[in-house]
Amino acid sequence: MSASTPGSAPVLLAQAPDGVPTITSGDDLAALLTPVLAALTWPDGSTGLAEGDVVVVASKIVAKAEGRLVAARDDAERDQVIAGETVRVVAERARPDGTTLRIVENRQGLVMAAAGVDTSDVPAGTALLLPEDPDDSARRLRRGLNARTGVRPGVLITDTVGRPWRRGVVDLAIGAAGVQLLADLRGRADAYGRELTSTVVAVADEIAAAAELVKGKVSGRPVAVVRGMGHAVTREDGDGAASLIRPPAEDLFRHGG
Amino acid sequence: MSASTPGSAPVLLAQAPDGVPTITSGDDLAALLTPVLAALTWPDGSTGLAEGDVVVVASKIVAKAEGRLVAARDDAERDQVIAGETVRVVAERARPDGTTLRIVENRQGLVMAAAGVDTSDVPAGTALLLPEDPDDSARRLRRGLNARTGVRPGVLITDTVGRPWRRGVVDLAIGAAGVQLLADLRGRADAYGRELTSTVVAVADEIAAAAELVKGKVSGRPVAVVRGMGHAVTREDGDGAASLIRPPAEDLFRHGG
Repeated sequence: MSASTPGSAPVLLAQAPDGVPTITSGDDLAALLTPVLAALTWPDGSTGLAEGDVVVVASKIVAKAEGRLVAARDDAERDQVIAGETVRVVAERARPDGTTLRIVENRQGLVMAAAGVDTSDVPAGTALLLPEDPDDSARRLRRGLNARTGVRPGVLITDTVGRPWRRGVVDLAIGAAGVQLLADLRGRADAYGRELTSTVVAVADEIAAAAELVKGKVSGRPVAVVRGMGHAVTREDGDGAASLIRPPAEDLFRHGG
Repeated sequence: MSASTPGSAPVLLAQAPDGVPTITSGDDLAALLTPVLAALTWPDGSTGLAEGDVVVVASKIVAKAEGRLVAARDDAERDQVIAGETVRVVAERARPDGTTLRIVENRQGLVMAAAGVDTSDVPAGTALLLPEDPDDSARRLRRGLNARTGVRPGVLITDTVGRPWRRGVVDLAIGAAGVQLLADLRGRADAYGRELTSTVVAVADEIAAAAELVKGKVSGRPVAVVRGMGHAVTREDGDGAASLIRPPAEDLFRHGG
C-alpha cells in the first residue's frame, strides 16, 4: 500500500503481529518471522511486508536466538553477570534496602541500569545478555528477510531504557540496518529564512518508540512493522545504531551522579 | 474508524495535517485547528477526529497563541531571557568558541538546553518562551476541541530535547490532558509467571515521538493526530505531563556534569 492517502498528508502506520513463536538458542529469526510478517493485514487490505517498511524487533528475542542466556542462580551470580557486561559506572546510589542502584556503560557502549542484562521473562536461574553486536544482528536479519521475502525492509533492534529527569522507560534503537538513523536538518531554513542550526532528529529512536506502543512488554508481541517511513529506509545497510551513542568527549553526563 | 483490522493486531496510525495557519498572539487554537482536523482523511476513507484520538501539538504554536514571544535583540538579551527561565544549572561546559553550553532546569521543571527558550522559526529580534503552564494549555485546548467537535480527544503538547549519552533530539510530552501518561506494568506477570518489577512505560513520551515522525520541524506541520491509542485516552483530564518529571530526590542526574 502507499503510505499516502489522496488529499491528506503521509500516514504513519505501526502494528505488531500476533503469532511470533517462542524463540530459543539457534533459531533462525528471519525464517521464523517471515510467515508471521506475511500474515499482517493493513487497513487498505494489503498484506505482508512492503518496500519502505521498518521491521522493529525487541533485543530480547534476538538475544535468545543468539544463545545469550547465561546462568544466574542467585543475586550474587546476577551481580557477577552484570559486572562482566559493565565497562564503567556512570552513576550509583544506595537504595533504602541496602542494595545499590547503578547506571553503567556496558560493552555495547549503552548507558543502562543493570548493563542491559535482562532477568524478566527468562527461565528461572538465568539472565539474558544483549546481543554481542546488535548492528550485526540487524544486518543479518535484514539479509535473511530479504532473501525470503524479496523485500528489503529497514531493521531496528530495540531495547528499553530509563532516562535522567523523566519518569518511565522508552524504547531505543540499539541495532540498525538500512535505516537513516538521524535526520539532519542543519542548513535547512526555518519559515523566516534563517538556518536551523542544531536540529538533528533521532529518527531511529522515535521509530523504536512508536513501535513500542504496539509491541508492548506483556502482550507477547516482540516485533512490529512501521510503515510510512520509506524516506528513511536505505538500500545500503549504512551506519549502525552504535553511531547513535554520543562520543564521551561530547557528553556532559558520562561522569554524572 | 476502528483501530483494529479484522484478523490482525491493533494498528497505530499517525498523520499531520497540512494547512495549519500561522499562529499569532491571541489566536484561539481550538477554533483554528478544528477545520484543519476535520479535513484529515484516514486510510479507511473516514475523515476528521474520532474518540480515542490523541491530538499532539508542538509547544511552539501554543506559546505563540499565548503571546509568549519576547524581545531578544542580541545574544546578551537572549542570555538574559534564558537566565530568567532558569531555575538551576544542571550541567555546563565551555564550547571551543568561548561560549558556554548550559543544560538547565527551567521554570516548568524541564531539563533542557537554553531553558526551552526558542529562537528558531520566530521573527528576528525575538525569542519564544514555553507556555507558562503547558498542562493548563492542554486542558484548555481539549475543552475547546470538545466544544467544537463533540469529540473528546487526548491532547499532548510536545517539545524537542537532547538526551545524555545519545545523539539527536526527540520529542517529549510537556503538557497533557486526557492521556494516561505512564503504563504501569508492575504486578503483571511475564511469560514465566514472575512479576515484572520495574516496568513503567512512558506512553505519552512515546506518542510524542511517534507524532514527531509525521510532524517534522521544517514541514510547517506542527500538529499530528495519533489514532489507535484509545486505551490510553481517559474521560477525565487526569495528571498533567508535569507528573512525568522525576522528583529530584529520585534522580541520579540532577546534579551531574
